[in-house]
Amino acid sequence: MSSEAETRASAAEVAAAMWAEDNASQSLGMRLEQVGEGRAVLSMPVTETMVNGHGICHGGFIFALADSAFAFACNWTDERTVAAHCAITYIRPARLGMRLVAEAVEVLRQGRSGVTDVTVRDETGAVIALFRGHSRTIGGKITKEEGETS
Amino acid sequence: MSSEAETRASAAEVAAAMWAEDNASQSLGMRLEQVGEGRAVLSMPVTETMVNGHGICHGGFIFALADSAFAFACNWTDERTVAAHCAITYIRPARLGMRLVAEAVEVLRQGRSGVTDVTVRDETGAVIALFRGHSRTIGGKITKEEGETS
Amino acid sequence: MSSEAETRASAAEVAAAMWAEDNASQSLGMRLEQVGEGRAVLSMPVTETMVNGHGICHGGFIFALADSAFAFACNWTDERTVAAHCAITYIRPARLGMRLVAEAVEVLRQGRSGVTDVTVRDETGAVIALFRGHSRTIGGKITKEEGETS
Amino acid sequence: MSSEAETRASAAEVAAAMWAEDNASQSLGMRLEQVGEGRAVLSMPVTETMVNGHGICHGGFIFALADSAFAFACNWTDERTVAAHCAITYIRPARLGMRLVAEAVEVLRQGRSGVTDVTVRDETGAVIALFRGHSRTIGGKITKEEGETS
Repeated sequence: MSSEAETRASAAEVAAAMWAEDNASQSLGMRLEQVGEGRAVLSMPVTETMVNGHGICHGGFIFALADSAFAFACNWTDERTVAAHCAITYIRPARLGMRLVAEAVEVLRQGRSGVTDVTVRDETGAVIALFRGHSRTIGGKITKEEGETS
Repeated sequence: MSSEAETRASAAEVAAAMWAEDNASQSLGMRLEQVGEGRAVLSMPVTETMVNGHGICHGGFIFALADSAFAFACNWTDERTVAAHCAITYIRPARLGMRLVAEAVEVLRQGRSGVTDVTVRDETGAVIALFRGHSRTIGGKITKEEGETS
Repeated sequence: MSSEAETRASAAEVAAAMWAEDNASQSLGMRLEQVGEGRAVLSMPVTETMVNGHGICHGGFIFALADSAFAFACNWTDERTVAAHCAITYIRPARLGMRLVAEAVEVLRQGRSGVTDVTVRDETGAVIALFRGHSRTIGGKITKEEGETS
Repeated sequence: MSSEAETRASAAEVAAAMWAEDNASQSLGMRLEQVGEGRAVLSMPVTETMVNGHGICHGGFIFALADSAFAFACNWTDERTVAAHCAITYIRPARLGMRLVAEAVEVLRQGRSGVTDVTVRDETGAVIALFRGHSRTIGGKITKEEGETS
């Protein structure tokens, strides 16, 4: 990262630092597709361990994908920001073999609070779920200065 | 199940049938601790694959536990009931090695709609998250008559 | 309205019929500014009876404005549609003398369920509140055939 | 109020101070029925100006009653606490002439954040709506020392 104190890490640098420590999203097979200022797109395959006997994905995994996209979208300023309250509306079932895509957009930020909307779709663009996340910025940088350890 | 048409499967029978096809909850290490009419208690350990580099559990797994408890609590009448809208409030972080316990209670049911509240706690009883789930009964039995296949 | 059974009332006709029976929105001083297919804009002044001793508007009135905008946006197909679950996030206080503007957009509809987002702003465009409404279509027309009485 | 600085105002004293400046709740005909530590019961009649042409109460007024009960339940420690995010689920319609009763209970408080649940019922005890409010304590006392003006 830049040695100039006044230079904020870019959204891509913050995302790379977050991704490096995010075992959970990685263990679910998520992929960070795009990231920008207040935006993130993540994808995840619906695998055997995520579905019931009828091949329908457990809602918790759809939520987890949306929650990860939310986290990447609302941490772009490199001030550690966490989820406070999230709501999800299920529109269509997700099925074994689908690759789900979650697109997150930070709608606004007011003081230390923020609201981020996430839409989860299948490969055809059909909406699987709508998610709205409320964040709180608790402070502390995500990226580290050279030589720094967590 | 009983051969008498008028006998509804018990909450325990419905839960057993649900559990048998719920690969997702099982793959996350969940355990069905208690089940009753409109009530369910499930537990889940916070494992390495659920945490980030700081040992903090990804919110998606906390949600998944609550969501499973919600499903067991609102399907007890043996009419297939699904999640429509869920909200979660994170109170404290969950950490690697904790065993989380989710207690779900169906607050009410009106027509085909229902509301179920879930509290997720750690082993000391400290609240980790509050969850409120809205269900829709879509019909179809969960348990099967003898000789029936899904 | 048209005597041809196959002709659906326009969004404007539905809105006019709704407005005519909506004493509540009228009694709060709301004004129907715009209406379209899945869209509605309503405004409301913050009056003496809506504020506390510090001139801050009670959240219930901000919600009521958003809720009315939601109703106009999700009834445009002339099938009676009601609110099932609504959530509001307060961003900034609204104050005595402001004219609030609520813009509602139906995000999607799946079967008889729908999701509508509403943004409430002050005259400067600053966001006062974000609202997400979940609707259920219960059926029955809002407009009436000639000679019909409610 | 007590002249001893260390004596916190009672829940009843805080409620009285809140009520005195709450024109909005008063203008809607609300009545403060009970108040305690983290608890409040308020009632409100459904009047002509709250209903549509079919005698059904606008959801905004049901929300306003719940929101007021929430405010009285979460301000009992005499530190000014405001609503951040609220969700309401409508169970049954409220009708002209009913007297609605909202019972609010603060479920928990963690740091400056809190969660309060409110149940709105009609006189027969039938549930009209369920409400969950998220609060933030912003500080400042509600009651005033003798001689103090707001």
